Amino acid sequence: MIRTVYLEKDEVVILDQTRLPLEVAYARLDTPEKVAQAIKLLMVRGAPLIGVTAAFGLAMAVDKFTGSKEELVPYFKKVKELLASTRPTAVNLFWALNRMEEVFNSSLDEDLKQIKDKLKQTAEEMYAEDIKINQAIGENGSKLLLRDSRIMTICNAGALATCGFGTALGVIRAGFAENKVRKVWACETRPVLQGSRLTVWELMQDGIPVTLITDNMAGYVMSRGEVDAVIVGADRIAANGDTANKIGTYSLAVLARHHNIPFYVAAPLSTIDFSIESGRQIPIEERDKDEVRKIRDVYITVPEADVFNPAFDVTPAELINGIITEKGIISPPYKENLKILKGK
Amino acid sequence: MIRTVYLEKDEVVILDQTRLPLEVAYARLDTPEKVAQAIKLLMVRGAPLIGVTAAFGLAMAVDKFTGSKEELVPYFKKVKELLASTRPTAVNLFWALNRMEEVFNSSLDEDLKQIKDKLKQTAEEMYAEDIKINQAIGENGSKLLLRDSRIMTICNAGALATCGFGTALGVIRAGFAENKVRKVWACETRPVLQGSRLTVWELMQDGIPVTLITDNMAGYVMSRGEVDAVIVGADRIAANGDTANKIGTYSLAVLARHHNIPFYVAAPLSTIDFSIESGRQIPIEERDKDEVRKIRDVYITVPEADVFNPAFDVTPAELINGIITEKGIISPPYKENLKILKGK
Repeated sequence: MIRTVYLEKDEVVILDQTRLPLEVAYARLDTPEKVAQAIKLLMVRGAPLIGVTAAFGLAMAVDKFTGSKEELVPYFKKVKELLASTRPTAVNLFWALNRMEEVFNSSLDEDLKQIKDKLKQTAEEMYAEDIKINQAIGENGSKLLLRDSRIMTICNAGALATCGFGTALGVIRAGFAENKVRKVWACETRPVLQGSRLTVWELMQDGIPVTLITDNMAGYVMSRGEVDAVIVGADRIAANGDTANKIGTYSLAVLARHHNIPFYVAAPLSTIDFSIESGRQIPIEERDKDEVRKIRDVYITVPEADVFNPAFDVTPAELINGIITEKGIISPPYKENLKILKGK
Repeated sequence: MIRTVYLEKDEVVILDQTRLPLEVAYARLDTPEKVAQAIKLLMVRGAPLIGVTAAFGLAMAVDKFTGSKEELVPYFKKVKELLASTRPTAVNLFWALNRMEEVFNSSLDEDLKQIKDKLKQTAEEMYAEDIKINQAIGENGSKLLLRDSRIMTICNAGALATCGFGTALGVIRAGFAENKVRKVWACETRPVLQGSRLTVWELMQDGIPVTLITDNMAGYVMSRGEVDAVIVGADRIAANGDTANKIGTYSLAVLARHHNIPFYVAAPLSTIDFSIESGRQIPIEERDKDEVRKIRDVYITVPEADVFNPAFDVTPAELINGIITEKGIISPPYKENLKILKGK
């Protein structure tokens, strides 16, 4: 299994996902600023993975800290804020940083060496937990699939978006092992092409049959009766089940409903933001217009063209047939059922 | 106004649309084989335009013919078949070639020089007519628009897809002149990017406000309440109103219906194929998989990735709120109303 992120000596090492699939290359990040930049530039991406990467970044920064214990508290806050400011939509980032802060706050009575060790250990735990969570999501989600299903997905909610195994692709992976997945339709996912660059590569590595389409082909493929389910990841799920995910997810959900195809979201519980009532409160990141104007540094339109480039959209809960988590599958009504799950 | 095609001496000269918007360059085609190749490679594209281009190609071939009148008949047939074999979906191609054949057959008693002149004259007439037809489509379609509308479109059904003015963009152009169009949302239209390369360029040339989005953003933009109408072109309309157009059109129609946004098709009557009852009988061209795997000759996925690359899809009549033609706007029930229009 390919490692997407790890801590080595005093560096955070990440698989540089901007270079996939043409190159499998790692980048070594030796400052929190470099970790923040790597998250912003999508060198490392995927809601669960950016959370754990930020945790490693914070652990590394504290590990290299040479000042006094008094100076450490404001330094920790500064680094945490730097890492939190990288991307606004995925809640896992804030969840991971808050968890690190809790450990930090509860260790302040200990000596510097112990604080450093505890933070590194927490980040490593989150890494290992994430893989287990994904395997549980896969196992749970696979139960929803009938034999020989053809699954459509968007973006990459795979091993590459997590610490391993994946969320939406975790369900596909588990289903494939049980002969429940005949083929995967991967939407290329413009503008950043996580579908064509990452999902196609990841599934081909595992020998899972995958066919690439451009995003605008999804409706046509559904109308031909060639899709049995749509499974996507999530960047943030509101308390009512509204789900922010990669731009284009909402269109797929509307199309799936029109064709009576079940539409599932696969995500760890850390993706659920109980502090917000509905998807209207989820901030949607708008990214650089050149992501749309250019592909691999070449202009594909008039360089001065006006562009709208939202990185995410929100799918209302009523279009979602189930949310697959590590604790089981949540069905509507989400507001009530998510609350019950939280209590568990 | 930019000329998209013309006959000059013994060459068909076309604006090479594969080089737009980075270069405005013309290609000179001096054999019917080169004309056929230019149509296949999308150097010249758009249902009305490939019809007229094929007519010019046929006229040029006959004009350069040096054999006897007896040899001309099989030669004409051969060239006609060559040009007809280039692309299967747009019916205007066959319509234009058949019209040329009628003129040819009815002139067989005349001498070679007269036959040649008549064919050239017919192609020139089709060119001039097409512009007038588009202006009438624009005038008719503009009546459907309210003040300050925000229009979404896909692909390029503009001046570049026709001999001038355009069909869907003709409606936008006419509407803009009457202050009925506040802005245009151009879907980039993967894989060949006719939206980002052609529509954005064409509208910017005319000072019409246009914002480029990737195809998967369409649903999100609609959900924000920022689209008042969707207007698209057509490659073939069946007798019941089912409409084949650029891949992605069907998804837009489903999304528009979900958001209660009117969805219009703008096309000349020559696009209507009364010989087929429904869209199920329209052949859908599948193009080279590398169109999806590459952008501007660079791979954006695993080179061996499996790909599905249909160039068109079919939007069922029930999702279409009106078909805008040069003779007026056709409303449902299309089967009946198209027949009435045909009789006129």
